[in-house]
Amino acid sequence: MNRLITLTTDFGLSDGFVGVMKGVILGINPRATIIDISHDISPQNVEQAAFVLANAYRFFPANSIHVVVVDPGVGSARRPMAAKIGETIFVAPDNGVLTQTISDQPSAVVHLNRPEYFLPQVSRTFHGRDIFAPVAAHLSLGVPIESLGDPIIDWVRLAANDATRRDNQIVGRVVHIDHFGNAITNIGEEFLTGIDRASLTIRVGENVLRGIASTYAAVAERAPLALISSSGNLEIAVRNGNAAEQLGIRWGDQVIVEAKSQGARKVV
Amino acid sequence: MNRLITLTTDFGLSDGFVGVMKGVILGINPRATIIDISHDISPQNVEQAAFVLANAYRFFPANSIHVVVVDPGVGSARRPMAAKIGETIFVAPDNGVLTQTISDQPSAVVHLNRPEYFLPQVSRTFHGRDIFAPVAAHLSLGVPIESLGDPIIDWVRLAANDATRRDNQIVGRVVHIDHFGNAITNIGEEFLTGIDRASLTIRVGENVLRGIASTYAAVAERAPLALISSSGNLEIAVRNGNAAEQLGIRWGDQVIVEAKSQGARKVV
Amino acid sequence: MNRLITLTTDFGLSDGFVGVMKGVILGINPRATIIDISHDISPQNVEQAAFVLANAYRFFPANSIHVVVVDPGVGSARRPMAAKIGETIFVAPDNGVLTQTISDQPSAVVHLNRPEYFLPQVSRTFHGRDIFAPVAAHLSLGVPIESLGDPIIDWVRLAANDATRRDNQIVGRVVHIDHFGNAITNIGEEFLTGIDRASLTIRVGENVLRGIASTYAAVAERAPLALISSSGNLEIAVRNGNAAEQLGIRWGDQVIVEAKSQGARKVV
Repeated sequence: MNRLITLTTDFGLSDGFVGVMKGVILGINPRATIIDISHDISPQNVEQAAFVLANAYRFFPANSIHVVVVDPGVGSARRPMAAKIGETIFVAPDNGVLTQTISDQPSAVVHLNRPEYFLPQVSRTFHGRDIFAPVAAHLSLGVPIESLGDPIIDWVRLAANDATRRDNQIVGRVVHIDHFGNAITNIGEEFLTGIDRASLTIRVGENVLRGIASTYAAVAERAPLALISSSGNLEIAVRNGNAAEQLGIRWGDQVIVEAKSQGARKVV
Repeated sequence: MNRLITLTTDFGLSDGFVGVMKGVILGINPRATIIDISHDISPQNVEQAAFVLANAYRFFPANSIHVVVVDPGVGSARRPMAAKIGETIFVAPDNGVLTQTISDQPSAVVHLNRPEYFLPQVSRTFHGRDIFAPVAAHLSLGVPIESLGDPIIDWVRLAANDATRRDNQIVGRVVHIDHFGNAITNIGEEFLTGIDRASLTIRVGENVLRGIASTYAAVAERAPLALISSSGNLEIAVRNGNAAEQLGIRWGDQVIVEAKSQGARKVV
Repeated sequence: MNRLITLTTDFGLSDGFVGVMKGVILGINPRATIIDISHDISPQNVEQAAFVLANAYRFFPANSIHVVVVDPGVGSARRPMAAKIGETIFVAPDNGVLTQTISDQPSAVVHLNRPEYFLPQVSRTFHGRDIFAPVAAHLSLGVPIESLGDPIIDWVRLAANDATRRDNQIVGRVVHIDHFGNAITNIGEEFLTGIDRASLTIRVGENVLRGIASTYAAVAERAPLALISSSGNLEIAVRNGNAAEQLGIRWGDQVIVEAKSQGARKVV
């Protein structure tokens, strides 16, 4: 038993915080494999961490342990928690960051309240080091999640952030701007099932895009387009350019998808 | 057989794209060793990726697998490819990024066209995850490159970007600005063989430097100098300062090396 | 014997320098475990590297090898060195970066002057690759530190950078601004032993804070506070905000802690 451990934090890479978490893990399990998902989550942005994690974890081995430390409530009464779904384990503060990933019938959710699995001294400001890293290390060695704390059912859920349908429109918003400036929306591909994609109009801010392309290469260099991102959501992009900059798109902007003609046919 | 895998991309580290590639690799080869070369290549900058790779790969074990995903043509007809030289394997889009590294008699070059070595679902936007990572993982386990696709001979070559000699000058340009602001040129040390280095004048923009120093410490703090970089190329630097900022040097700037006196002696 | 290796440098992550160091290490010890502490030390900032290392290394296994390459004197007469304290080994240029970490009775300190443990060719500009990485790799395989060079006793010490007590004040300064904008001082918790923390006034620039909180959550969102950081030092922070930006605090700023009343009771 040697489960892979992933780390997602808002710690950045300059201060050694992430290195220290790995040092703690390797002190407990010297054979641990630790992979960084992201340490560039905006400080305290729980929603962004949830998005990045939800799009990444499915590509790791099923028995991985995913640790998220975006923790605006560190040192307060918020609980540290762990949850298991299938063979996958998540470790995080109980602040809603796992809402989406564990919505589908976790087999165990526990309050991490067994200090024998923490570092001997627990600070009030760095639970990534003192609680989450050692807990993940013990889990990677095969300690069952049930040993790490008491079961809970009242973990924090973030309000759903889903796109909605109304009349002949799908209304969503930009939930992530990636490194390339692509704007990812919360409009999943399932909203577009059975629709003629070429007939759609996509509006975001002042921009109006026609149709949904199958790939960046479908348009000219530096031209804007809408397509399905690698995460399966509607994405606004500029071929080999930066859509967020070029089109003035920002996190949270509303995105409306509608049938081009105002005529008889409904989009959804 | 467990070849080390390196990754060079323009993905940045904020979105989890690199972590996902590692997750895919470890799902196929749980014992893989994966090392990051750089994920900070400027978006779609194939030439920069080629430079960084060419200067890095020689310092890795000879049987390593070097994966480059700087891929402006993702989703278009550009082919994914792999090449083997000696024991070293390169995996990349067929866009010229390997021009320099495989110019020296590859023993095999293939079009990666065997989907059984890809992820089951291949997106149109993230071949790093869906093609290049799984292919590298299979190679690391010992799958022969010949099994991964049909041989090709017409892979894309970038135009050579070499310095040139004319009269008593060597004419090159700045091909990389590093993290410290050092300006690395495409003038290799071989251009300077047998020349009295102290007699040379180096011009870049408005700046004129005399002689080629052997080390940063040869000049005063914050003074500019020319020297041979750790990559073996002529470099313009400022001792413990940022040459690009202080001297106003930019990527692509012309660099001219010439004999100080206009007299009898020729530089080359 | 397979000691974990950590890396702390000012190389950044964009040029492949760090990847190359890892390639060199893995070429010598293919089973090495290598962990990044930070590669974002400000260029040539020896004091900052010393601070980051001192706060990180204690959380790694005791027999780890900590490599620091912040090296403004590369190519000059400054020596490469290694030191052992207990089971822990440090490898760095002899420029004072280890002052604090090896102040406590090293059992061995050597000048790294055995080229058989270096790369065959040693450049004048990149000793991280050519000297420090291969030395660390050999150490990780169990080569004794004494084999790597001649003993020295005159390594460079940085002047102590301690807070001081005067009258009823503790006078320190900001020695680190972290990724969140927290300002960490050189005032260790030991300065506050036996003092009523609620009675203290903390001054930095124009800001005056009352008392030392036990956790960020003790104050309102976006409110400033002083508390003990995870490194054990006095820290000025803003709850879920950026203290350096919001309060205008900069590296090196003076911080004064004093008793609120000017009355009979002395702070220290």
